[in-house]
Amino acid sequence: MTTFSVPSPIQVTVWGENRHEKRDEHVAKIYPQGMHTAIAEGIEENLGDACTIRTATLDDPEHGLTEEVLAGTDVLTWWGHTAHDEVSDEVVERVHRHVLSGMGLLVLHSGHWSKIFVKLMGTTCTLRWRNEHDRELLWTVNPTHPIAQGVPQPLVVDEDEMYGEFFDIPVPDELVFVSSFTGGEVIRSGCTFRRGHGRVFYFSPGDQDYPVYHNKDIRRVIANGVRWARTDRPERGLPELRRHDTGDFFDSRSSAEPLR
Amino acid sequence: MTTFSVPSPIQVTVWGENRHEKRDEHVAKIYPQGMHTAIAEGIEENLGDACTIRTATLDDPEHGLTEEVLAGTDVLTWWGHTAHDEVSDEVVERVHRHVLSGMGLLVLHSGHWSKIFVKLMGTTCTLRWRNEHDRELLWTVNPTHPIAQGVPQPLVVDEDEMYGEFFDIPVPDELVFVSSFTGGEVIRSGCTFRRGHGRVFYFSPGDQDYPVYHNKDIRRVIANGVRWARTDRPERGLPELRRHDTGDFFDSRSSAEPLR
Amino acid sequence: MTTFSVPSPIQVTVWGENRHEKRDEHVAKIYPQGMHTAIAEGIEENLGDACTIRTATLDDPEHGLTEEVLAGTDVLTWWGHTAHDEVSDEVVERVHRHVLSGMGLLVLHSGHWSKIFVKLMGTTCTLRWRNEHDRELLWTVNPTHPIAQGVPQPLVVDEDEMYGEFFDIPVPDELVFVSSFTGGEVIRSGCTFRRGHGRVFYFSPGDQDYPVYHNKDIRRVIANGVRWARTDRPERGLPELRRHDTGDFFDSRSSAEPLR
Amino acid sequence: MTTFSVPSPIQVTVWGENRHEKRDEHVAKIYPQGMHTAIAEGIEENLGDACTIRTATLDDPEHGLTEEVLAGTDVLTWWGHTAHDEVSDEVVERVHRHVLSGMGLLVLHSGHWSKIFVKLMGTTCTLRWRNEHDRELLWTVNPTHPIAQGVPQPLVVDEDEMYGEFFDIPVPDELVFVSSFTGGEVIRSGCTFRRGHGRVFYFSPGDQDYPVYHNKDIRRVIANGVRWARTDRPERGLPELRRHDTGDFFDSRSSAEPLR
Repeated sequence: MTTFSVPSPIQVTVWGENRHEKRDEHVAKIYPQGMHTAIAEGIEENLGDACTIRTATLDDPEHGLTEEVLAGTDVLTWWGHTAHDEVSDEVVERVHRHVLSGMGLLVLHSGHWSKIFVKLMGTTCTLRWRNEHDRELLWTVNPTHPIAQGVPQPLVVDEDEMYGEFFDIPVPDELVFVSSFTGGEVIRSGCTFRRGHGRVFYFSPGDQDYPVYHNKDIRRVIANGVRWARTDRPERGLPELRRHDTGDFFDSRSSAEPLR
Repeated sequence: MTTFSVPSPIQVTVWGENRHEKRDEHVAKIYPQGMHTAIAEGIEENLGDACTIRTATLDDPEHGLTEEVLAGTDVLTWWGHTAHDEVSDEVVERVHRHVLSGMGLLVLHSGHWSKIFVKLMGTTCTLRWRNEHDRELLWTVNPTHPIAQGVPQPLVVDEDEMYGEFFDIPVPDELVFVSSFTGGEVIRSGCTFRRGHGRVFYFSPGDQDYPVYHNKDIRRVIANGVRWARTDRPERGLPELRRHDTGDFFDSRSSAEPLR
Repeated sequence: MTTFSVPSPIQVTVWGENRHEKRDEHVAKIYPQGMHTAIAEGIEENLGDACTIRTATLDDPEHGLTEEVLAGTDVLTWWGHTAHDEVSDEVVERVHRHVLSGMGLLVLHSGHWSKIFVKLMGTTCTLRWRNEHDRELLWTVNPTHPIAQGVPQPLVVDEDEMYGEFFDIPVPDELVFVSSFTGGEVIRSGCTFRRGHGRVFYFSPGDQDYPVYHNKDIRRVIANGVRWARTDRPERGLPELRRHDTGDFFDSRSSAEPLR
Repeated sequence: MTTFSVPSPIQVTVWGENRHEKRDEHVAKIYPQGMHTAIAEGIEENLGDACTIRTATLDDPEHGLTEEVLAGTDVLTWWGHTAHDEVSDEVVERVHRHVLSGMGLLVLHSGHWSKIFVKLMGTTCTLRWRNEHDRELLWTVNPTHPIAQGVPQPLVVDEDEMYGEFFDIPVPDELVFVSSFTGGEVIRSGCTFRRGHGRVFYFSPGDQDYPVYHNKDIRRVIANGVRWARTDRPERGLPELRRHDTGDFFDSRSSAEPLR
């Protein structure tokens, strides 16, 4: 008799650019241990021993994202802003391959312009913006989605940067949240995308100038996103080109050779 | 510290029309305890003590679907065919209300023309068909979906009724499986729909003339569907019309009175 | 050599409940000829001789929606509010059949609770509301959609009733507009749905208390919607259940008899 | 009074790799003027003077896709197979920019592995395949879509390469066709994607070994796709990052400088 097994802990890697925190005094005050630490704490606060968390930053060797680290990561979260260009193309390719092979990815706020997000989306990922202390309200438009569980309607963020439409992304597979701002702008602020064998969640709140990642409801959403993004598939693997003889559905030969 | 709690058992009600089994000898041979019993066994086989299953049939009082039964049902599965018209409108309204309030619903095979499915979809739900022992192959087109986990690519059903396109349903929220048949027809055979606070999964295999619900992979899909369709929301409730004063996001008065 | 033929004029029927205009003085001042007349003028203003428009109202015999009228209607627009219950079920069935057979339908504002919209959606269609002179901003989130052409970003409505999330509709096939209101609420305000052979567009602005249908941009959206909703199919017809022999893809016999 | 204006001719550029035709005798017999010429003829056959067509091939300078050519192209069609790697990255970037700026793109058959399609999708775009003279049947699952107009149900292709699931693409915005093959495989064979300000249609039939692009129904689909992919927007332009002051929705300053 099969039963629900208790799932193994989710291996989470929280990646942070970690530059504003070192450079901008007011950011360092909000996030003295770095934004990545606050994000990690928020996940731990919600998932507890259902997850195991490590952090990695831009200035680590290979940005802390070696093949070994990624192979041991179920879900990667990504916050970057001022130094997208400094992320090496090799690491971006590696992360991309792992996402398509089944690693979950959460892209936060200004990560909309990270190399990895732009590569996964195929669009410009541009948007409308203003950094003037707008109040942000997040409205759930998909109340049965796992990522929306336990989230107030609306979720109030006292101050945040405004990110507005048109946000140039592909139509999301699922739209979970829509935000409005004091100034009247809106954005599709919680969006899921399936890519290859991986699940991607973009979540727009979180400018470095405000204590957004200390907000308990924001933390809840991120933790829900981590839980959702962990694949159900037992093994990591990239979708592969396969030739199949007629009637031979299950055996195949991989097509390293070019297609006929 | 919060942790993954072990979820409580899923309360499943398997509803069967149970007419062919009493009337048609060859169906009775395949399903001597009724199709609903085979479906229930398949769920139990996969979910074990992670679920609690009861069955209900058309000829039970109120078709076995009293308010009390539905209030205690997390996920209802529905197989009907020859007697859709005999299902009382009152029970259909009741099931509809529970689905929109958060009860999961799996609609199987000829249930595409059940009153409850047609009411939830808003379309004719007609299709192309032929009952001539076609082999059915189910192909996963959404490999990261929870319902597709552990399912072979393709899932082979040796014999089944052909159901083909155009299948007049709304565009599914998620397309999980596409089937082909010996004759060359195809159908979107595994489709999810979110309606109100409820999750609906339509799964097309399962004509009464063939032992489809004894197929272990079909049983796996149905069990996966049950698990997926159980809501994450803590309480059952119908979406309600609510008036909110400016700035008063959380308190409201319900609008029993007509809208201004 | 085939060429773009000049399309024949779109036969539009603008349906109005026409009760507030007779009963409420301030509404009569805004819409002295009725809201339906203003809506019709807005379509004419944009489409000119590319359309032929008639109007029909609740108090007409059969609400002005006889079989003959519907058979001659390419696109029907629907505004109702205070008297949804007075619309006869027979007419609702008739409109439903025509939509699934290929007639386009635009549902405006409080039409979200009309019998025809609720029947097509299968959900409660409830929402959050407040009628307090909020400014409404409509943001285009799908800039390549035909309905968004020529529409400012954002489209500003000086005053309107607030309609907010959660709006209990199925996930739209296409989300074209998202609105925000002075109070901070948002709604998916421009949504398309394909149902049967018909196209449906829900557009939320337009409370009777404000001159929304005199706004030239709102008129442009409605006209765009009319153009989009007109089917490309040459003949109107309901999707039908069809049995096909193996290898006989094109001939079939209709299945008036019950399914085997 | 505004009316339907007669649209200006669609400027189509048909791009062909044009290598098999020069190298493989049996391909040259099927397509003596090259596959691109057959594709162009099929579009002309259907759209006549509603379009103006030029062709371009891999061996032309800049592959025939200069800035000037692309600026004058409403819709580009792409067939490539054996020489994807020979397409210069600079030209791919140029095409990508034009698609996101509003140029329509049709990707045909083995173009699923072209650099431009993979870049737009963000996934591996791999699939299952077999080149053994399977019959392909294309089934319309979205009968109201403009691309499906005038297309038989099913569309029969006597012989084609089999392309099957799992096809690793993002979930299409719209699924128009699903194909089955003699061997029982299926593929989502007609898929639309909106990217930036551009519309993309992937259409899977068309191996070089069979006369698929002489099939009149296949030609009809491609012509429908061309018509659909032409933008309604009056001007070509890339989505841009824009900063807006509070209350200043329409003026903005472009953000060449990094985001704050």
